[in-house]
Amino acid sequence: MEPVNVGIINVTGYIGADLARLLHQHPGVNLVSVTGRSAAGQNISEVFPHLANIDMVIEAELGEVDLAISALPHGASALSVVQALEEDIKVIDISADFRLKDANEYKQWYEVTHPAPELLSEAVFGLPELNRSQIAGSRLIANPGCYPTCSILALAPALREDLIETDIIIDSKSGVSGAGRTLKLTTHFAETNESVSAYGLSGHRHMPEIKQELQNLAGDQEVSLTFIPHLIPMTRGMLSTCYGKLKRESTVEEITDIYREFYRDEPFVRVVDIPPQTKQTLGSNMCLIHPVVDHRTGRLIVISCIDNLVKGGAGQAVQNMNLMLGLPETMGLNQLAVYP
Amino acid sequence: MEPVNVGIINVTGYIGADLARLLHQHPGVNLVSVTGRSAAGQNISEVFPHLANIDMVIEAELGEVDLAISALPHGASALSVVQALEEDIKVIDISADFRLKDANEYKQWYEVTHPAPELLSEAVFGLPELNRSQIAGSRLIANPGCYPTCSILALAPALREDLIETDIIIDSKSGVSGAGRTLKLTTHFAETNESVSAYGLSGHRHMPEIKQELQNLAGDQEVSLTFIPHLIPMTRGMLSTCYGKLKRESTVEEITDIYREFYRDEPFVRVVDIPPQTKQTLGSNMCLIHPVVDHRTGRLIVISCIDNLVKGGAGQAVQNMNLMLGLPETMGLNQLAVYP
Amino acid sequence: MEPVNVGIINVTGYIGADLARLLHQHPGVNLVSVTGRSAAGQNISEVFPHLANIDMVIEAELGEVDLAISALPHGASALSVVQALEEDIKVIDISADFRLKDANEYKQWYEVTHPAPELLSEAVFGLPELNRSQIAGSRLIANPGCYPTCSILALAPALREDLIETDIIIDSKSGVSGAGRTLKLTTHFAETNESVSAYGLSGHRHMPEIKQELQNLAGDQEVSLTFIPHLIPMTRGMLSTCYGKLKRESTVEEITDIYREFYRDEPFVRVVDIPPQTKQTLGSNMCLIHPVVDHRTGRLIVISCIDNLVKGGAGQAVQNMNLMLGLPETMGLNQLAVYP
Amino acid sequence: MEPVNVGIINVTGYIGADLARLLHQHPGVNLVSVTGRSAAGQNISEVFPHLANIDMVIEAELGEVDLAISALPHGASALSVVQALEEDIKVIDISADFRLKDANEYKQWYEVTHPAPELLSEAVFGLPELNRSQIAGSRLIANPGCYPTCSILALAPALREDLIETDIIIDSKSGVSGAGRTLKLTTHFAETNESVSAYGLSGHRHMPEIKQELQNLAGDQEVSLTFIPHLIPMTRGMLSTCYGKLKRESTVEEITDIYREFYRDEPFVRVVDIPPQTKQTLGSNMCLIHPVVDHRTGRLIVISCIDNLVKGGAGQAVQNMNLMLGLPETMGLNQLAVYP
Repeated sequence: MEPVNVGIINVTGYIGADLARLLHQHPGVNLVSVTGRSAAGQNISEVFPHLANIDMVIEAELGEVDLAISALPHGASALSVVQALEEDIKVIDISADFRLKDANEYKQWYEVTHPAPELLSEAVFGLPELNRSQIAGSRLIANPGCYPTCSILALAPALREDLIETDIIIDSKSGVSGAGRTLKLTTHFAETNESVSAYGLSGHRHMPEIKQELQNLAGDQEVSLTFIPHLIPMTRGMLSTCYGKLKRESTVEEITDIYREFYRDEPFVRVVDIPPQTKQTLGSNMCLIHPVVDHRTGRLIVISCIDNLVKGGAGQAVQNMNLMLGLPETMGLNQLAVYP
Repeated sequence: MEPVNVGIINVTGYIGADLARLLHQHPGVNLVSVTGRSAAGQNISEVFPHLANIDMVIEAELGEVDLAISALPHGASALSVVQALEEDIKVIDISADFRLKDANEYKQWYEVTHPAPELLSEAVFGLPELNRSQIAGSRLIANPGCYPTCSILALAPALREDLIETDIIIDSKSGVSGAGRTLKLTTHFAETNESVSAYGLSGHRHMPEIKQELQNLAGDQEVSLTFIPHLIPMTRGMLSTCYGKLKRESTVEEITDIYREFYRDEPFVRVVDIPPQTKQTLGSNMCLIHPVVDHRTGRLIVISCIDNLVKGGAGQAVQNMNLMLGLPETMGLNQLAVYP
Repeated sequence: MEPVNVGIINVTGYIGADLARLLHQHPGVNLVSVTGRSAAGQNISEVFPHLANIDMVIEAELGEVDLAISALPHGASALSVVQALEEDIKVIDISADFRLKDANEYKQWYEVTHPAPELLSEAVFGLPELNRSQIAGSRLIANPGCYPTCSILALAPALREDLIETDIIIDSKSGVSGAGRTLKLTTHFAETNESVSAYGLSGHRHMPEIKQELQNLAGDQEVSLTFIPHLIPMTRGMLSTCYGKLKRESTVEEITDIYREFYRDEPFVRVVDIPPQTKQTLGSNMCLIHPVVDHRTGRLIVISCIDNLVKGGAGQAVQNMNLMLGLPETMGLNQLAVYP
Repeated sequence: MEPVNVGIINVTGYIGADLARLLHQHPGVNLVSVTGRSAAGQNISEVFPHLANIDMVIEAELGEVDLAISALPHGASALSVVQALEEDIKVIDISADFRLKDANEYKQWYEVTHPAPELLSEAVFGLPELNRSQIAGSRLIANPGCYPTCSILALAPALREDLIETDIIIDSKSGVSGAGRTLKLTTHFAETNESVSAYGLSGHRHMPEIKQELQNLAGDQEVSLTFIPHLIPMTRGMLSTCYGKLKRESTVEEITDIYREFYRDEPFVRVVDIPPQTKQTLGSNMCLIHPVVDHRTGRLIVISCIDNLVKGGAGQAVQNMNLMLGLPETMGLNQLAVYP
């Protein structure tokens, strides 16, 4: 089969760079175009020396490709998506622009009017473990956020199998790279190192996205969700600790079996018997999930972890791309985690 | 007033060392004796070069003191406490030996029979913000654990003022020094650095201690507690995120006012308006508390942070010591946090 | 004795904040005024929550003080110094403006014309271990940079006692806080964490300052100096590894004795027998020095470490202030390092 | 071509684990056997959860293989090598046992009598950039240490091309994983984090290895070498700063051209124009080299960096294996660095 030509819109952020790392090594596609406004004209190695093996000039406009992955910020990304679709280019949007199904909710959380609300119903939420077949048939994928990926995968079996009440708490911990490459005091080394803090307390933008998908899983029962993210002094890695009341007494073995069955054929989800560390996923596309039962309180606690830039971003985009192009789902994603 | 002679039993761990740091600089007491089994005969500066200004030899047995602080491990500590009390020495026990009021519960969690159950009712749980007057009059203080200190202070106003239901979740994040100086794979640098993980999932030993004290605050209502600790790649610092259902709709301003009033005269608790960072407490005895209301779900979320070795250990012991000796409560504890 | 009124010009950087921490706790002075352009009008606790115990408003202009410490950037600082001296205020300048004795060299390295060259000969290089008496009698102190402090103290005995040739290499390692609070990509957490790099390779501005002072120590022999700084993924701490050829064969015991004698009465320099860690100085004003002899090559290697913001900045300024005010040199500087 | 069967002797350390990561993904070989004394009988995923995709049981004895890589400690490794060679298995020895050509020097530095001195002359020092053809024809490769790899590559062009005097200083900085997985106080998280220190000051075991190879490069001129390693609070990564006197005045452009020419065809060495960060090599087999000229002192400074476990260990072993097996040298080693 002829390799497919793909491009990265806005390669200059962390997810853009990780896309370049993964696509350069991908045997089924040719990375033929990368864009970036401020860096246009530079070689990619000038912006990211670790990508010096990729000899490409960053362009102002996308070249001829069959599929594009946009790593632009929200708002800007939607415009880029519309243009690509008009040119018959399939698109995976890493930004939040096509994740929420409701344009009003989008406006409420992102404080801009959605530039292309007519595409919202068409866009598929790109979590392959839940939406594999729709992804394969779609021309527009909304790649999930890192917190949603980590948290929804942790809770999907419990909600689908009706194991827990729908009043849910998600306490998440993220490495600093999730905040991007833009300079901020909160990601200044001396301010962030050797410290942990909660943030987004008045409502983090990933909350409605998580809630929307949990609601799809829960069916008729109304989901009530508290989501509190925390900043951890490490570069990559994300761990979610999810809390829900069990509907009936269950042993951890029963729950684990249900989880194992649910994810039986998934190449990138592993239900593990010992508490996972984020480090066990570094640089890889794996999601590790560990359910625990607190018999004293009748609670199910599910711990999940991912590399926020891979399964929480670039890797999941490549997984979606593989599905859209009819390639093996794991192609280009076989790297094991770099540990320690 | 004549300075009082005090001693540290087992100075060779991290809390022992931090006690030495604080007591050496304390204007109201003389640190006259430090013990440590394996290091006996060495100068304290050989074990801890940063304490080279303290020119003391580590002894096998405690010298003549009026008050001793034991930083021995549980089990061993109780024996040491009994001996000290027999010699009319006041004792602050950093270990868990006198925290739980029920000897059976102690046995269940610590897997040894309590060596001195007759002292359990006499021992005062050394959280000055709740038990100041009993501490002042006691000869035996059970210094609270780091997780209990951080979490109980976060929840005390809410429970005392009957703001929340008693079905509570505490999700805590701790720096690695809390695991002590004993070598373990889980605290080996390359295993722990750049990673976050949950632990103690089958039941952490601080859980019953937190529950006992929350129950005292809640009165008649039965407390149901889920407590999940996490290991964070930093040396010092602890943050607890506490979740409870509000009994009635309240604004964050109302809740904050109640918290401020509750801690109005406390020198070491500050209710803050912006989410605190653990870094803001490094090396100091402060506890920062930040309540948040999630109106969507009717939940109160309280975030608290401390330096796990100071307010969560050595500093709180000094605060208790000051109360027991009739010294100003803040004496020797005025250092501001070292930031950044 | 009446406490003296002191002020901090530009409290909003890391050294400014550490000055506030130290001066607030200093028993011999009153911190009565702190300035900061962009933050003027805010309480210091709004900018630095860890300083909330200091209830002061940041002002645009310095209030009435007897002594001021300027933590302004170079260029701006000199103007501020001139103004203060005109008002008969003693000044300690943390910036580089009065460290180099030669206005041309200043211009070459700092790329601005010196605004007050007539003060250069009057200013005293504020390294108390070398210039104690001049400091005590001066109204203008140039507080040394962090690299110079760490490196000059390491080499002073060797040069003064004519132990080594004057062709010297200093390889230094610094924590990230030395780069200040201004946002830069090189101090963005995700770029700096888990990485080490050399910088300033075309010539770091601390080089001429180190060379000037080493030349003073070396007398007639021309000093040739290579200085290479490195950025280390930690917040505070600095270590210099200094290399010079021994003039005659010596044992490490002989060298150590000479170093011990040289620093015999110094409260803030300790010559240590085991290789020091920067961590042993965190938050304290200590400099640890460890000489090593490489008999195979006839080289003396001297390792020194400090907290770059304390002995390398704010603490040394307080030490100079004490000398200028006739206070005990160690006043307000007795805190032991916070370890681990 | 039939894939070759290979095995890892002692997979349970960090280099062993990284070998498993690389060999599992290697298209030209089958990893058919992994050994480990204490872990024998366990699945590799029990020891290293990040390797769960490799479904192999750790054995007590090596199975049938064509080539083995030994990651045993020195001493034990030599015995294992002898046995493998007797069974006609090609061997790459990661330990130091066959690096030094002189059995007496080995005894002096490693404090054991060499168990197989007759093999020392046969063993090839496995630095492909210098010894490619001998490696290809050998059955026994001594894989270089991490410090030697990083430092020799930095200095090889300068010595081969006679650019510098042979009185050389190497100041190296290493991540903590280089100290291995065995528990020690010096690699205990709370002791090592947020700190930098020099070590091995009485003579690090990598010194004679570096010196031996630099001497080979320098020819007739006697090499005098001072080597000082430092421990950096990061997991992976190594940077060497190498200092030598230029024999004649040269511009950095001239030197860089000579370096570029020297490494022109090398897939894993890149001469870079901006100072490299260790982070740019994480998980990859690259060595980045950056020469600098200090005109003030006539010194050449060469900065080099690698991932200490990849080019400094497992990756270099795979590179050597490829050469020994007649496979393309870069096979299985194309992963780009994981950044940030």
